[in-house]
Amino acid sequence: MTGKYQELVVHLQEITNLNRAGALLGWDQRTQMPPGGAAARGRQLATLARLSHEMFTDEKTLHLLDDAAKEIEGLSYDSDQASLLRVVRQDYEDLFKLPAAFVAEMAEVTTLAHPVWAQARAENNFAVFQPTLERIVELVKQSAEYLGYTDHPYDALLGQFERGMKAAEVKAIFDAHKPALVDLIARIRAVSSRVSDAVLHQPFDIDRQRQFAVEVVRGFGYDFNRGRLDETVHPFATGFSRDDVRITTRSLPEFLNPALFGTMHEAGHAMYEQGVAAELDGTPLGGGTSLAVHESQSRMWENIVGRSKPFWAWALPQLKAIFPQLGGVDLDTFYKAINIVKPSYIRVEADEATYNLHIMLRFELEMELAAGKVKVADLPQEWNDRFEASFGIRPPTDAVGVLQDIHWSGGMIGYFPTYALGNLLSAQYYNQAIREVPSIPDDIASGRFVTLLGWLNDRIHRHGRKFTADELTRRITGEGIQSRDYIAYLETKFTEVYGL
Amino acid sequence: MTGKYQELVVHLQEITNLNRAGALLGWDQRTQMPPGGAAARGRQLATLARLSHEMFTDEKTLHLLDDAAKEIEGLSYDSDQASLLRVVRQDYEDLFKLPAAFVAEMAEVTTLAHPVWAQARAENNFAVFQPTLERIVELVKQSAEYLGYTDHPYDALLGQFERGMKAAEVKAIFDAHKPALVDLIARIRAVSSRVSDAVLHQPFDIDRQRQFAVEVVRGFGYDFNRGRLDETVHPFATGFSRDDVRITTRSLPEFLNPALFGTMHEAGHAMYEQGVAAELDGTPLGGGTSLAVHESQSRMWENIVGRSKPFWAWALPQLKAIFPQLGGVDLDTFYKAINIVKPSYIRVEADEATYNLHIMLRFELEMELAAGKVKVADLPQEWNDRFEASFGIRPPTDAVGVLQDIHWSGGMIGYFPTYALGNLLSAQYYNQAIREVPSIPDDIASGRFVTLLGWLNDRIHRHGRKFTADELTRRITGEGIQSRDYIAYLETKFTEVYGL
Repeated sequence: MTGKYQELVVHLQEITNLNRAGALLGWDQRTQMPPGGAAARGRQLATLARLSHEMFTDEKTLHLLDDAAKEIEGLSYDSDQASLLRVVRQDYEDLFKLPAAFVAEMAEVTTLAHPVWAQARAENNFAVFQPTLERIVELVKQSAEYLGYTDHPYDALLGQFERGMKAAEVKAIFDAHKPALVDLIARIRAVSSRVSDAVLHQPFDIDRQRQFAVEVVRGFGYDFNRGRLDETVHPFATGFSRDDVRITTRSLPEFLNPALFGTMHEAGHAMYEQGVAAELDGTPLGGGTSLAVHESQSRMWENIVGRSKPFWAWALPQLKAIFPQLGGVDLDTFYKAINIVKPSYIRVEADEATYNLHIMLRFELEMELAAGKVKVADLPQEWNDRFEASFGIRPPTDAVGVLQDIHWSGGMIGYFPTYALGNLLSAQYYNQAIREVPSIPDDIASGRFVTLLGWLNDRIHRHGRKFTADELTRRITGEGIQSRDYIAYLETKFTEVYGL
Repeated sequence: MTGKYQELVVHLQEITNLNRAGALLGWDQRTQMPPGGAAARGRQLATLARLSHEMFTDEKTLHLLDDAAKEIEGLSYDSDQASLLRVVRQDYEDLFKLPAAFVAEMAEVTTLAHPVWAQARAENNFAVFQPTLERIVELVKQSAEYLGYTDHPYDALLGQFERGMKAAEVKAIFDAHKPALVDLIARIRAVSSRVSDAVLHQPFDIDRQRQFAVEVVRGFGYDFNRGRLDETVHPFATGFSRDDVRITTRSLPEFLNPALFGTMHEAGHAMYEQGVAAELDGTPLGGGTSLAVHESQSRMWENIVGRSKPFWAWALPQLKAIFPQLGGVDLDTFYKAINIVKPSYIRVEADEATYNLHIMLRFELEMELAAGKVKVADLPQEWNDRFEASFGIRPPTDAVGVLQDIHWSGGMIGYFPTYALGNLLSAQYYNQAIREVPSIPDDIASGRFVTLLGWLNDRIHRHGRKFTADELTRRITGEGIQSRDYIAYLETKFTEVYGL
């Protein structure tokens, strides 16, 4: 490319290098770092973040964006160059919306909030957290004003995590499938005794769990030459280039699911990052485009593939070879066990049928908090009432109710919907994939995952951040995000599993 | 402290944070990184190095140094503040001596030189490397002119690695003990059959080797809450703060020494860094003062402690508990085995008696190269002749002769002497320690290492880079570096081991 555009790319690559170095420091912190290293690590991360912020918000960035725009005038919307300028200009503008003093105040308040929330949860005492959460909600409402919106303050909050998405769209999508979920769960509850997951709860050697999980995700196409697997407390995936994307897992000695499905989940995230086009790597476009699209990839491999019957037709004999204690378990029993539906108070333990209901509850409360329609003081009561209405059970404590998740203590209001949108997109994309490549389910049943991964690479991964979630979804499926495919998927699966 | 000094410290801390982040990227590269990650890692390291260099060479540094100097006028030479200004000003001036274009040329030539050297060594063909080495030697001589010297160009080269040390001093120290070493080795060679190390060459489970090495260095006082141990190909120690200093090791399945003594060696380096005063951490003074002093610590724990009889009186029963195959080996046999003297062509495999001779040979050749007294083309012949004169054996190939080490291909001429100086200092410091704390040998024999480590912490570690090697040595021992103690140590040990 020409002079100024190239200069812009070099400038942005330097910033990306700093951000990726910071990501490595973060990975190390969560997987390798000895306890003593924490304080210095915090200072090192702060320096990297400060320099990256300084370099990006420097006037030089704006001038290069302006000059480069003139140079590449006439290139198509889809071109790498036009996409880079479009996305980076938005990044740049977003960064200036929040005043530095406000960002600093938010950082201070949320840093102090974390131990307060942890204490409140440990002591099951919402009152401990209430004043802090009130302050956070005030700041979050303030941030919505800074960020700007036309319809609802929640648009501004959501937009931080899912660019271009509006609260009204999310609400319409959620409203469209909430009754179906509530109904499905009620029907399942009536026949809950038909499925047991006892077979998954027994001693499983940790090293062998890991060995099997590695075989599975290597089979999926996660490239260990460009990644690795480590143990951690709260698993995550992170990358430092498309050629070094790492996953983490947590293994329990007497429960198969966390290491097995958790590793599939993180590998789904990681294969997205490994699949970004080499030309975009090291630039601001080199990475997944949004949290919802990212979650669609992790959930597709974890659930649509990893909890499917075709997959286990292929995988169960291998699992039995590693764990002979499962020798007598037939495919049907195993398939039902891994798809058991057990309404839980805890979101992170939720099955596929109930997961989105957890998110809807939180989304509704967040909308009303942002609009000032519900008070922080009323959250425990509101939480429990609404939870009971959706799930048919009432949380016995706030610790497993409104206090369960860390996000609000970090000021992350607007984040949760992306989890549910990811579930919806996973089914929507997968259905499109099998429409275009009908052999995919049979391929999965014979351990050939390359047809699905190849399709995802081509339609989603390689584009990096070039397109928003909405743009990408319309390009791929011809329509925006919808819940139809997901509900149909759940109906089919649970009709089979529970004989509804 | 006052305004400008504090501002300087903050500025330098930011630079240190960048350097330490780079160190973590380097550690990861050598211990964890998947193969695919190499290219992006190189770019990330380059960005961190460039920013650190830019921030340090910025005029701001000089102005702050000047302003801070006025503020702290009158503080003693030993104060942290005066020391910081003194050391950092020297760092700053050193960085400006080499023109940027020269540094870039040197980097390019040495980057290209590495595979050429590797090929020459693999093919045992010095002619392949000769033109490249000639170019490097020319550049190195040029760098000496840029760096400046009064007596000998080698002073400038050595000074890069051992600040303030002069070639004439090194030569005098080496000349003073070379005859004693040559004589000692000849006497040992005459009775070489008296010692066998066969007991060390047998199958040893890698995990158990590691377990024992961990127990030993934890016993020494290496703090695993502020460090960790990983496997790598070429072991090293590195730190990201005094509270996160990591060591690495290489384990061989049929030879006990590399993992055992190598881990002690790296732990010696690491305990130095872990012992730097907290007040200096995160500043340019937070780290070991010179390569020679660093090596004195690694060699003291590896050899003076780790290859001593008192130590094994305590440790051998524990080693036997882990490796029952050693049950029949008595202390005397084991002690002799780990102290066997076997003149080797290869420096990195050298025993204590021959190690410094390897360095002297290289030092003499480097001096003459720098002064233009020996030609690159003549190096193989010169090497072999001199090696034979010192060791009594002649290298059969250049691959195990003049081509064995990587340093020259990287332009590192002036580095080798620090290894030998470290050996000398290890004995000099240890003798001072037992003069002041006579219980140390008995403490070691009962597994109490805290008396020695405490003394090292107080006299050496806590000072970080405040004093040069020479200043530190004179403060501690009342004289400059000398070979008397090291030769006496070797004479005593090998008289016992070989019954001389």
